[in-house]
Amino acid sequence: MRNLKLIIEYDGTAYHGWQWQPNGITIQQVLEEIIATITQAHSKLISSGRTDAGVHALNQVAHFRTASRISLYNLRRAMNSMLPHDIVVKEISEVDDDFHARYSVKSKVYMYRIYNNPVRTALWRNRAWHIYDELDLEAMKTALKLIEGTHDFSSFCGANDDAKTHVRRIISTDICIEAPRMIIITIEANGFLRYMVRNIVGTLADVGRGRIVPADFFELLQYRDRTKAGVTAPPQGLFLKEVRY
Amino acid sequence: MRNLKLIIEYDGTAYHGWQWQPNGITIQQVLEEIIATITQAHSKLISSGRTDAGVHALNQVAHFRTASRISLYNLRRAMNSMLPHDIVVKEISEVDDDFHARYSVKSKVYMYRIYNNPVRTALWRNRAWHIYDELDLEAMKTALKLIEGTHDFSSFCGANDDAKTHVRRIISTDICIEAPRMIIITIEANGFLRYMVRNIVGTLADVGRGRIVPADFFELLQYRDRTKAGVTAPPQGLFLKEVRY
Repeated sequence: MRNLKLIIEYDGTAYHGWQWQPNGITIQQVLEEIIATITQAHSKLISSGRTDAGVHALNQVAHFRTASRISLYNLRRAMNSMLPHDIVVKEISEVDDDFHARYSVKSKVYMYRIYNNPVRTALWRNRAWHIYDELDLEAMKTALKLIEGTHDFSSFCGANDDAKTHVRRIISTDICIEAPRMIIITIEANGFLRYMVRNIVGTLADVGRGRIVPADFFELLQYRDRTKAGVTAPPQGLFLKEVRY
Repeated sequence: MRNLKLIIEYDGTAYHGWQWQPNGITIQQVLEEIIATITQAHSKLISSGRTDAGVHALNQVAHFRTASRISLYNLRRAMNSMLPHDIVVKEISEVDDDFHARYSVKSKVYMYRIYNNPVRTALWRNRAWHIYDELDLEAMKTALKLIEGTHDFSSFCGANDDAKTHVRRIISTDICIEAPRMIIITIEANGFLRYMVRNIVGTLADVGRGRIVPADFFELLQYRDRTKAGVTAPPQGLFLKEVRY
């Protein structure tokens, strides 16, 4: 059996997230069905982690084991010709048997895009969160830096999160302007809780609006209580940018 | 009657271009119908020029005359609440009676995006032209610089173009990398013939692939014959970026 590693880009707009769901089509389902058609056998495709409905990926990583002897080049071409326009396999490589797309992860990098303008955007509506109020970027940068390092992120995890521990380490953060009015927030961590980026960004927007100061943002983290923090930012601004092994 | 100037952003994917068509919905039609509903009178909306099916605009400019006394703020809000998600009015201002969105144009700036990668893109599929072959950017820059200035652009205009003269002046050009593998070509001219940017980009791609050298590109221009130049680049990579008055 070969162990194959895929790097996948997708536009999450039309999908109910990565992971198989009883109702609604998912990215994992689309990919597994195409792999089964090509290799004539069912293989479980394991990703670095699920992404939620409407969330995008620039470089999601997944692996599967197969007895098929198809060349990697032909497999990629066959998959891309069968995949819908909003999913593409960018790279396929053969990896060691002990490579596991989820358990081997060293860190993940997420990007969140905010379109900050009094008027909404037509062109980037499915690729950014539109915020009317003018945001104070410097305050947001200061606040985000305060949560770098190892902390219990209970204040920023989804209400139904079932992770054994809520302790994660944020390795680096960055906020920059990509294009006029397009703010890019980048967060690298050794792991993320469910909704963690979207909850951090939702609360960070309150810092940007001046509703809370950076020190309050850090205090919210220390409460370890989800009900204290801000809203969950919408999914369309979120991109899984990179997975590091 | 007030003369109102609009700055409009749109995602052209779902439309048959700017201008009214017997079959298929257009951006002009959607806007005029909403203006008629709000002002209770039909007004002709005149743009800086039409954009073709699938072409986008970051800042299209248009004007219309109205007897309505609605405030500009309320008009913009009303229009944006009625417009579909892929069209938005960014600004409305009252202008002198002699301002004409088309005849007052001093220059227009178009941007063309090429995604240059062996594998297609899922996320930017409606916002860029995907080219497999690796492009030589320096050769493309050199070629594009050669056609700056005043020339007869017959070689790069649509077959059915009915403009009185094919002479235009390209004021400036630029090619840069916006993000990994995303090439941005920018052209400012005092006016554009139909399909002119897309025909220039289609031929420029042949320079990038090494099929022709920059001097050949300039020679093609001098033939003044559309049949000599390259393909028409597809519409989804083209953005009307700015109109200058």
